[in-house]
Amino acid sequence: MRNIIENIVDALNETRNIGPLVHNISNYVTVNDCANIILACGGSPIMADDISEVEEITSICNALVINIGTLNARTIPSMISAGKKANKLNHPVILDPVGVGASNFRTDTVLKLLNEVKFAVIRGNASEVKTIYAGSGYTKGVDATKEDEITSENLEKNISIAKSLSQNTGAIIAITGKMDIVANGNKAYIINNGHSMMSRITGTGCMLSAMIGAFCGANTQIQLEATTAAVCMMGLAGEFAYKKMIENNGGNSSFKMYLIDFISKIDEIILKEGAKVEIK
Amino acid sequence: MRNIIENIVDALNETRNIGPLVHNISNYVTVNDCANIILACGGSPIMADDISEVEEITSICNALVINIGTLNARTIPSMISAGKKANKLNHPVILDPVGVGASNFRTDTVLKLLNEVKFAVIRGNASEVKTIYAGSGYTKGVDATKEDEITSENLEKNISIAKSLSQNTGAIIAITGKMDIVANGNKAYIINNGHSMMSRITGTGCMLSAMIGAFCGANTQIQLEATTAAVCMMGLAGEFAYKKMIENNGGNSSFKMYLIDFISKIDEIILKEGAKVEIK
Amino acid sequence: MRNIIENIVDALNETRNIGPLVHNISNYVTVNDCANIILACGGSPIMADDISEVEEITSICNALVINIGTLNARTIPSMISAGKKANKLNHPVILDPVGVGASNFRTDTVLKLLNEVKFAVIRGNASEVKTIYAGSGYTKGVDATKEDEITSENLEKNISIAKSLSQNTGAIIAITGKMDIVANGNKAYIINNGHSMMSRITGTGCMLSAMIGAFCGANTQIQLEATTAAVCMMGLAGEFAYKKMIENNGGNSSFKMYLIDFISKIDEIILKEGAKVEIK
Repeated sequence: MRNIIENIVDALNETRNIGPLVHNISNYVTVNDCANIILACGGSPIMADDISEVEEITSICNALVINIGTLNARTIPSMISAGKKANKLNHPVILDPVGVGASNFRTDTVLKLLNEVKFAVIRGNASEVKTIYAGSGYTKGVDATKEDEITSENLEKNISIAKSLSQNTGAIIAITGKMDIVANGNKAYIINNGHSMMSRITGTGCMLSAMIGAFCGANTQIQLEATTAAVCMMGLAGEFAYKKMIENNGGNSSFKMYLIDFISKIDEIILKEGAKVEIK
Repeated sequence: MRNIIENIVDALNETRNIGPLVHNISNYVTVNDCANIILACGGSPIMADDISEVEEITSICNALVINIGTLNARTIPSMISAGKKANKLNHPVILDPVGVGASNFRTDTVLKLLNEVKFAVIRGNASEVKTIYAGSGYTKGVDATKEDEITSENLEKNISIAKSLSQNTGAIIAITGKMDIVANGNKAYIINNGHSMMSRITGTGCMLSAMIGAFCGANTQIQLEATTAAVCMMGLAGEFAYKKMIENNGGNSSFKMYLIDFISKIDEIILKEGAKVEIK
Repeated sequence: MRNIIENIVDALNETRNIGPLVHNISNYVTVNDCANIILACGGSPIMADDISEVEEITSICNALVINIGTLNARTIPSMISAGKKANKLNHPVILDPVGVGASNFRTDTVLKLLNEVKFAVIRGNASEVKTIYAGSGYTKGVDATKEDEITSENLEKNISIAKSLSQNTGAIIAITGKMDIVANGNKAYIINNGHSMMSRITGTGCMLSAMIGAFCGANTQIQLEATTAAVCMMGLAGEFAYKKMIENNGGNSSFKMYLIDFISKIDEIILKEGAKVEIK
């Protein structure tokens, strides 16, 4: 059996070889960056959200990414319809529950989506994932902590949340932030790549979810490792982009450009050398 | 009492310290740049436009920015609902009346918004502001001039329009262009920063309105100065971005990147040295 | 009579002189890039899609671009209404049938648009154009080929499809890809500019259609040549952007920036030297 580093390199290579088509029902804020990062990592994006075509579109794709960043009443039925179709076809469906917890509309919609669609991966920040975890009927206590951000102190607790939520939903849970957790019900990978600049631009979370769509679409047999690969690559891209931003005396917008650039240029040697992944 | 330059430096520092949440009901053309410039100046953006959540979302924010760039029937009730809620909570509400006057739909909607919502700031170009001024029932004569752009010749007339419109609406009026005016009913600041390249990319106006949201959300006690600070900073960013574009043999798209970069990097020394503000 | 190279230089200069207003009913993925490339080539963009204003907005413009990239039920009547109005005013209307053939919704909508609106230009990739050609009732055989991409081997066949579709629709047909064809019923220009990197970012097709809107809006008397000019300039921009990307050790996102930069900087000398256009 190959180790995790070998697996993430395989996942990258397979994504580039297959060139998965990724159907996105997304938001209008970060959608261009999502499309471009899918292309950068080796996939091809299709954005389509009208109820009249989402089933057909998702049928020709390898994966579906549902992002609720600018959720509106019109596209919720499209999300459900596309999700059900993707489930039937056994395509991985990724959920990015942007801002869940910030309004009842978002929370209710996410719970509805979880009821109707089987997700392969749910990726969010710690607050989003805890909202879903609590909303699902688990103890709400964990959410009371002011500081949701994953640290080495609360890491174990967060891993157990991720594993529990995975057992309940059947989805791989990716909690991303200063440290990242990618877990199924039994196993968790901890990723220590990334840079704080990533939170100073919009869309790093959305882009990562889109990229997870591409990686899972191309690596259906090793989705836990494929998700880990995408998380790790995004973190590495943040590290490299920060370095290049400093070298070029750039700022936030340069950082975003270098981040996407890096995703398009990373090869297996860079990934192997830079990946900081451990199993818990 | 601190002078205007000290005030704009205070406004920048306070924006960075507080990190205001800014709710945007915006257009789908420039929304990514708006989100990124809010982050660059020290705030955090939330884009949400569904009637089911706009009240809740605006409640957790420090300011609301309404931008009619791609106005459509679906989000007008959302704008009104969010605006009313923000008014109740005493959050500053900023209006960017993009293209008002270009269609009856835009003009009617702006007049409706002005009736239903109390705006803290209205920011537009000279034609947009004059349309609102005339549409409000004032003499239409001033709008007959072919050349709406603010110059030293028509400056006094434009200042008096801004002051009158401010008295009528209760909003701070920001007219931006080659020269910028920021006025309430009694006082006007004239800002002489900026570069003509800013009109060769899309979104500098929208980005400025978004940034005014962040500045006013963080500086509720000095909104006239906070608006002036945002206008001044945007102008300075245009000057620096142009220099860097020329140095790097870049073009329009580089200019946009450098503009956002600069907003993320500006500090009080640069702002103090570069600001060209006078009181009228 | 001026030759094609002189004509495309004229078309560029006229676009810069006139500064055409271009009305776009577009998608939310690439719309910002479309707006910025219209500005970069010398025009001014207006994005408006609500049925309440599209007729008024298109009336003040020089051209209309309809792009179905994120087609939805709400804006189809807007597209038809704006298209009919533009037809009455004799403004060129450009169709970008993004993804036609990928769903019945897209195919049916495109056929409906073709019935209701007279297009000046239809620009798509080879698969999109062939779908329309077949959907219009012509032999479906040509579409059976796996490899739709235009090559020197199938060039003649593609030229004859373009000419036939032009005769049937009255529109100039632009098929873009590794090689580009711009044809009316009698004449075809073949453009050999471009770079394969253009397919690794989202929006090069959309941007080109937007730019064709600007060029045709400014050059109503020589629309075949104006379309050729836009196609040629976009290809050249791809070549230059690739060179600059390599020089700066950049990636996909840098490439997009350099592409738009180049469009804003190209002059007639560069265009004359770089253009690879032949008549067939």
